[in-house]
Amino acid sequence: MTEHRIERDTFGDVKVPADKYWGAQTQRSFQNFGIGGTTERMLIPVIKAFGVLKKAATQVNLRYGLDATVAEAIIQAADEVIAGRLDDHFPLVVWQTGSGTQSNMNVNEVISNRAIEILGGELGSKKPVHPNDHVNMSQSSNDTFPTAMHRLLPGLRKLHDALNDCSEKWMPIIKIGRTHLQDATPLTLGQEFSGYAKQVEYAIARIEGVLLRLYNLAQGGTAVGTGLNTKIGFAEAVAEAIAEETGFPFVTAPNKFEALAAHDARVEAQGAFNTVAVSLMKIANDIRLLGSGPRCGLGELFLPENEPGSSIMPGKVNPTQCEALTMVCAQVMGNTTAVSIAGSNGHFELNVFKPIIIKNVLQSIRLLGDAAKSFTDHCVVGIMPNERRIDAIMKESLMLVTALNPHIGYDNSAKAAKKAHKEGTTLKEAALALELLTADEFDEWVRPEMMLGLSEA
Amino acid sequence: MTEHRIERDTFGDVKVPADKYWGAQTQRSFQNFGIGGTTERMLIPVIKAFGVLKKAATQVNLRYGLDATVAEAIIQAADEVIAGRLDDHFPLVVWQTGSGTQSNMNVNEVISNRAIEILGGELGSKKPVHPNDHVNMSQSSNDTFPTAMHRLLPGLRKLHDALNDCSEKWMPIIKIGRTHLQDATPLTLGQEFSGYAKQVEYAIARIEGVLLRLYNLAQGGTAVGTGLNTKIGFAEAVAEAIAEETGFPFVTAPNKFEALAAHDARVEAQGAFNTVAVSLMKIANDIRLLGSGPRCGLGELFLPENEPGSSIMPGKVNPTQCEALTMVCAQVMGNTTAVSIAGSNGHFELNVFKPIIIKNVLQSIRLLGDAAKSFTDHCVVGIMPNERRIDAIMKESLMLVTALNPHIGYDNSAKAAKKAHKEGTTLKEAALALELLTADEFDEWVRPEMMLGLSEA
Amino acid sequence: MTEHRIERDTFGDVKVPADKYWGAQTQRSFQNFGIGGTTERMLIPVIKAFGVLKKAATQVNLRYGLDATVAEAIIQAADEVIAGRLDDHFPLVVWQTGSGTQSNMNVNEVISNRAIEILGGELGSKKPVHPNDHVNMSQSSNDTFPTAMHRLLPGLRKLHDALNDCSEKWMPIIKIGRTHLQDATPLTLGQEFSGYAKQVEYAIARIEGVLLRLYNLAQGGTAVGTGLNTKIGFAEAVAEAIAEETGFPFVTAPNKFEALAAHDARVEAQGAFNTVAVSLMKIANDIRLLGSGPRCGLGELFLPENEPGSSIMPGKVNPTQCEALTMVCAQVMGNTTAVSIAGSNGHFELNVFKPIIIKNVLQSIRLLGDAAKSFTDHCVVGIMPNERRIDAIMKESLMLVTALNPHIGYDNSAKAAKKAHKEGTTLKEAALALELLTADEFDEWVRPEMMLGLSEA
Amino acid sequence: MTEHRIERDTFGDVKVPADKYWGAQTQRSFQNFGIGGTTERMLIPVIKAFGVLKKAATQVNLRYGLDATVAEAIIQAADEVIAGRLDDHFPLVVWQTGSGTQSNMNVNEVISNRAIEILGGELGSKKPVHPNDHVNMSQSSNDTFPTAMHRLLPGLRKLHDALNDCSEKWMPIIKIGRTHLQDATPLTLGQEFSGYAKQVEYAIARIEGVLLRLYNLAQGGTAVGTGLNTKIGFAEAVAEAIAEETGFPFVTAPNKFEALAAHDARVEAQGAFNTVAVSLMKIANDIRLLGSGPRCGLGELFLPENEPGSSIMPGKVNPTQCEALTMVCAQVMGNTTAVSIAGSNGHFELNVFKPIIIKNVLQSIRLLGDAAKSFTDHCVVGIMPNERRIDAIMKESLMLVTALNPHIGYDNSAKAAKKAHKEGTTLKEAALALELLTADEFDEWVRPEMMLGLSEA
Repeated sequence: MTEHRIERDTFGDVKVPADKYWGAQTQRSFQNFGIGGTTERMLIPVIKAFGVLKKAATQVNLRYGLDATVAEAIIQAADEVIAGRLDDHFPLVVWQTGSGTQSNMNVNEVISNRAIEILGGELGSKKPVHPNDHVNMSQSSNDTFPTAMHRLLPGLRKLHDALNDCSEKWMPIIKIGRTHLQDATPLTLGQEFSGYAKQVEYAIARIEGVLLRLYNLAQGGTAVGTGLNTKIGFAEAVAEAIAEETGFPFVTAPNKFEALAAHDARVEAQGAFNTVAVSLMKIANDIRLLGSGPRCGLGELFLPENEPGSSIMPGKVNPTQCEALTMVCAQVMGNTTAVSIAGSNGHFELNVFKPIIIKNVLQSIRLLGDAAKSFTDHCVVGIMPNERRIDAIMKESLMLVTALNPHIGYDNSAKAAKKAHKEGTTLKEAALALELLTADEFDEWVRPEMMLGLSEA
Repeated sequence: MTEHRIERDTFGDVKVPADKYWGAQTQRSFQNFGIGGTTERMLIPVIKAFGVLKKAATQVNLRYGLDATVAEAIIQAADEVIAGRLDDHFPLVVWQTGSGTQSNMNVNEVISNRAIEILGGELGSKKPVHPNDHVNMSQSSNDTFPTAMHRLLPGLRKLHDALNDCSEKWMPIIKIGRTHLQDATPLTLGQEFSGYAKQVEYAIARIEGVLLRLYNLAQGGTAVGTGLNTKIGFAEAVAEAIAEETGFPFVTAPNKFEALAAHDARVEAQGAFNTVAVSLMKIANDIRLLGSGPRCGLGELFLPENEPGSSIMPGKVNPTQCEALTMVCAQVMGNTTAVSIAGSNGHFELNVFKPIIIKNVLQSIRLLGDAAKSFTDHCVVGIMPNERRIDAIMKESLMLVTALNPHIGYDNSAKAAKKAHKEGTTLKEAALALELLTADEFDEWVRPEMMLGLSEA
Repeated sequence: MTEHRIERDTFGDVKVPADKYWGAQTQRSFQNFGIGGTTERMLIPVIKAFGVLKKAATQVNLRYGLDATVAEAIIQAADEVIAGRLDDHFPLVVWQTGSGTQSNMNVNEVISNRAIEILGGELGSKKPVHPNDHVNMSQSSNDTFPTAMHRLLPGLRKLHDALNDCSEKWMPIIKIGRTHLQDATPLTLGQEFSGYAKQVEYAIARIEGVLLRLYNLAQGGTAVGTGLNTKIGFAEAVAEAIAEETGFPFVTAPNKFEALAAHDARVEAQGAFNTVAVSLMKIANDIRLLGSGPRCGLGELFLPENEPGSSIMPGKVNPTQCEALTMVCAQVMGNTTAVSIAGSNGHFELNVFKPIIIKNVLQSIRLLGDAAKSFTDHCVVGIMPNERRIDAIMKESLMLVTALNPHIGYDNSAKAAKKAHKEGTTLKEAALALELLTADEFDEWVRPEMMLGLSEA
Repeated sequence: MTEHRIERDTFGDVKVPADKYWGAQTQRSFQNFGIGGTTERMLIPVIKAFGVLKKAATQVNLRYGLDATVAEAIIQAADEVIAGRLDDHFPLVVWQTGSGTQSNMNVNEVISNRAIEILGGELGSKKPVHPNDHVNMSQSSNDTFPTAMHRLLPGLRKLHDALNDCSEKWMPIIKIGRTHLQDATPLTLGQEFSGYAKQVEYAIARIEGVLLRLYNLAQGGTAVGTGLNTKIGFAEAVAEAIAEETGFPFVTAPNKFEALAAHDARVEAQGAFNTVAVSLMKIANDIRLLGSGPRCGLGELFLPENEPGSSIMPGKVNPTQCEALTMVCAQVMGNTTAVSIAGSNGHFELNVFKPIIIKNVLQSIRLLGDAAKSFTDHCVVGIMPNERRIDAIMKESLMLVTALNPHIGYDNSAKAAKKAHKEGTTLKEAALALELLTADEFDEWVRPEMMLGLSEA
């Protein structure tokens, strides 16, 4: 049997589990929004961001006259929230009030009760640390985004470096190019991977490009953006304190009305994540196609074997890292739709789709960052080119005929290619059979390495 | 310090936490796919569905010669999985191999080790219950969907009934109609809610309409749809056993190639959930707009006050249930994009976006069902019409002028309306000031109750 | 220099091109919504549907007392609209009033002026055929959808039949199966295509399944759904007349409030088109991958060569029909997002996203239908299997080793496969080199035709 | 009866309409891709961009030895394409080969035949101006985007300026704030519009931010990115010539492999358009809600009356410009899904979803630009605040009670608010009835203008 204590708010008494710090308002939300169960809980990074906010605001309030003992207890409790030591005390789901206020109150209540406990008071008494009067600061979790990106950017940089290494390492390996999925003129495997590396380089630039507008904090606008009941300089001081706590260049938003009523900066950022997902989907698809086989696919790459495939079937290496990454990309693209709809449906002075926007943006960042790292560590760094096959099929390609044009003329070239295609022979065999050139001439003239655009200078 | 035991597979030895039932392959996937953390774990309903599948297959295998002791231990372990008693033993995330095989192996390993324990054997020994030889059945979690819909359909039916009650109860309350957000001719509040009830009635029909194709099981197609290595009648027998276990009319899919290579039935179902989300978004938006106020909004409805709003501000009741529901709808619409992309990207004999499809479809079902129930219980059933205001603004409306046409002519009617609009008076005041009719005539002719299409018959 | 005539409405005079039938309200909308230019014009099928509606309503009005001469002229003019003879007289873009009323007025004005002309009157005089009094019927273009589907369903049926033919024709051709893009056990090309045919069979069923709710007409609800100012039986009579004119089983909607305020039936239909797009994307992708080559791809199919590729490069046949079809599918999936957003944003008694919903649904139908037909005619019917290559790579596959298990044991089988994989030889060569069996035994035991699940019965 | 001439390509002869400049390859594509009809034709801006490209390449080719007479004829014909004089000669639809090559050939053929005509030659003879040898340059239409943005950016700047004017003009008008659609503390109408203006200011910055990567031209990469068969310096020279022709800072892409294989820069740009759509949807929704009425809505704004509404119903002004704009926003959001799917589905050295990407991006730009302009000209600049009503409902609001706190205490304030809410009176009436203060004191203490955060300094 669970034990309870009584907490109260303006609606009256409510029973709360005795071993939890949360209070009456949290309990009511918990009971009123039974939507989705524990996996749909408000994300822990958001809870931590509230912790940072409460701590920063308390530091500023101290300067404006808050009792030092109370302030220290709040800061200690907030530090515990930031450190993740109170994670079990935040039971609310994302699908709650659209302003996220109930999670804000959850943090207020937990910090209040934990601070009361630190100071030897009675849980639920609201003395000497009141959740509203002392802990409350209006909602904001903006700083969760730059923090989360700390996970994403290194993941992408790691991936970029690995792709770049491949590009440099494999610059001499000549292979068939493919357009429309059809054989085309050759390029090198290094050139192909340089395109992937470039995509990821741009992806990093795209992310960095949207960070800027995420550093604007709505904090200090209070209810409708006018900053009613805040002291002069408070918004700036809190932004400074948060910047100091997190190490990011946060500033107070120049227009609080925009900052509260819209979440355009989040929608914009999600647009960048969407672009990154599009890039990574392309790269992962190419790599699993190049790794298809072992006998009946393209077979140009050996992908690392991380898990047992068929025990009897050597060489059947399922491209599971590509699969995980492409699934992540599809999710991020879906999240973009959700965030766009949520961002477009605000009314007047407040957008009340905050929790879903935060959830989808943070999930996108987390999944992309983790998947980029996983894909790098467990796939990219272990890829080996199947040089024998790459060379063999490239040399079989009829596209090399273009190299004969200047020597035996367009018509003869076409004749050789047609014969080879019809009879399933190599180009060389066909050309020799037609007595258009000698074997030595063929070898001298048909040199894929001259078709790469590398020797221009 | 965590204790470990050694498990092994064809790759060799691997350390596994001593207190967990999972084996080597689960442990490898756990280490290779560090994407997203615990909230991204494979959904528990999917794990339970695997349990059902293993149990059903074992029952069939028993008939085909499986040792009875082994079979009983497997069935007991599978029952524990179904009952949710082993939930802590499934640590893998959604973002794994696209066939979901690693979660399948996770279930095999857990059931194997648990069955071994039941029979007094040694964990990890694979004796007498081998995860592959005895427990394994190829992947499928199709039956999760109908099961999950058991949560969704009752939620929608509850919502329908509540809206229908409102419609019947409020059929006599005449109110202003609004098109283009502009005042239009009157209707009754009951008529307005009958439209909402009808939308939900159709929503239920839409869900039921897509259930049919979800009852087709791919089970028995094995690797590529040919059913290699399965015995004749096995597919049908497993489908029957699953049907019996779950109470749903499952059958074996008529074409296994389609059933493995595509997930069109899931995409189709998600399309129905998307339509339901669109309907509910409209209803929730209307209700919060009608409940806007208390003084400066439309103010036609009092929404129930579930949580303290501003303690000093009576009547400020935030429509938090509408907010949670509209957020859920936006998520479901985003999930539709994710599922569509995933469904369209299959290759050849297997779609390898299974986990993301399952995750998004199941989340959509769960969120819609829970939110429909929450919205009904905590909002719809407690709505009260603000009859005084509904009546007052309806009577102020200039749209009533259309009722004067047959009596004083179009031109005079327009004159009265224009005067009222310009001077901000009521229509009656304007008409009387213009001496177009008497007060009694006005009251006799302008009767909103005659404008409702109810009295036609 | 363009000549003009003067038309007038309640706002006053406006200049209209002398050679056009439209009137003042059309001209104002034309000037007020300069969004997107001629390619964004309201779709012609919608204009024709308005023509059908005006004709049907006039037939009913005739029974209720409309002057016969006027009625006949209106019907003649409406027939010209239906026949497409007045297409140049509908200049308005989709991006206009959200109710589509301006296009409705455009049709009223054109029919009025054309009928006036027929009766020898003066354009713009509104006599003897007044655009509002005589021609106007409230907006609806619901019957455009079933009509458009007449283009879609035959296209899909054609595609189904072609895929089915391929399936039957190629049932004996054994080929490698592929899961995770990796070689798997064999199946036949006919089995593979049977999966595609089944997908399209289900696609047709999905379309037919959503047709039902599209036959409900809002006609007769007038402004807010109450049917104010319509006569008893009018709604039913118009629905009957439209059903007769079009040959579709149209009925009047059971709840006009739902029918006006929501467009859920269109959103639902778009969900079905989205599923069809997902199916076709998969099929087209598979086919172009199977047709990749000619030398360095999978090369299992020869796709028909419809346009010159490289003149010197025989065999480079770009899969352009697959490309057109997959682009169409991506567009339909994007349209689904647009339609869902539009459908979810209605307010109160009227959804004012009608034109965008109609545009996207009709475009989806048209593109899918045309592309299915084009893909069938210019690709599917001309596909030839490359039997030599299909057979060669299938036989090279190491997956066939599974057939040796019962004869030489698991360990020996694995040894042979590993040797073949390592040395790049065939399985047979490796098995013979290991002296595990004789060449005859190999040929007897390794028979792909026994691995197809066809010989079970 | 249409007259024809014979054109030929490597496939043989084909009949072409005698009055068209296009040749054999265009005619084949026209016949092979009957998808969607004339409204689905390749966009004219793309055709013009090809014209610019052909002109620029010819200028460079002239320096590399192209015959001057031929070059001049090509440049003249290209100028006619750029000027739009040959628009009827481009019949191909978007749904063609995914590289857009067929439209490229269409331009080659039209310019060739037109140049031949200029030089007095015979149409179809390919002499002296050959479509491939003399006119062809590999595909690219990148410069269409910056050009199109010339329509978008001015539209947004116009909208920004108009909203900013409103903000400045209406800074003194105090009104009720609304959060969760519920009455909140006051702000000014100017402050509210400053939020909208800020959103549009950021929208402009977002567009400018993505322009950068759109200036990279793939031109010169030829088939697979290696630049095979191009001369050193050619890519740079063409980029310079295009930059000069268009006035935009085009450069040759640093990595041609990325530039051909991916369209990430277009996906990124579409992400910015999506964000702009989200912003404008919010603004347009707010404005139509604030303009709702005339009697039964919020009624704070008078929107300009552009078209006759109900002739008898003065004041019913449908917010048609808001409707057109929100429809445009929904379309742009749907286009984002389409572009993302298309961008993610490239294979190897070429993305073959070019036409759909171009179509959706260009349509998004055009619609947003046109709609921003239309919305500004026909709505924003004509909005008038309904000051009487704004003031009246603001003063009725119970939220003003917060101003009494410091004077009569929290408990008394709450008592007054509750009484007013319960009895439907004003706050002042309630406070006076409770004898908590005098009328003069109320007027002195409750001053909304002190609640705006304007008087802080």
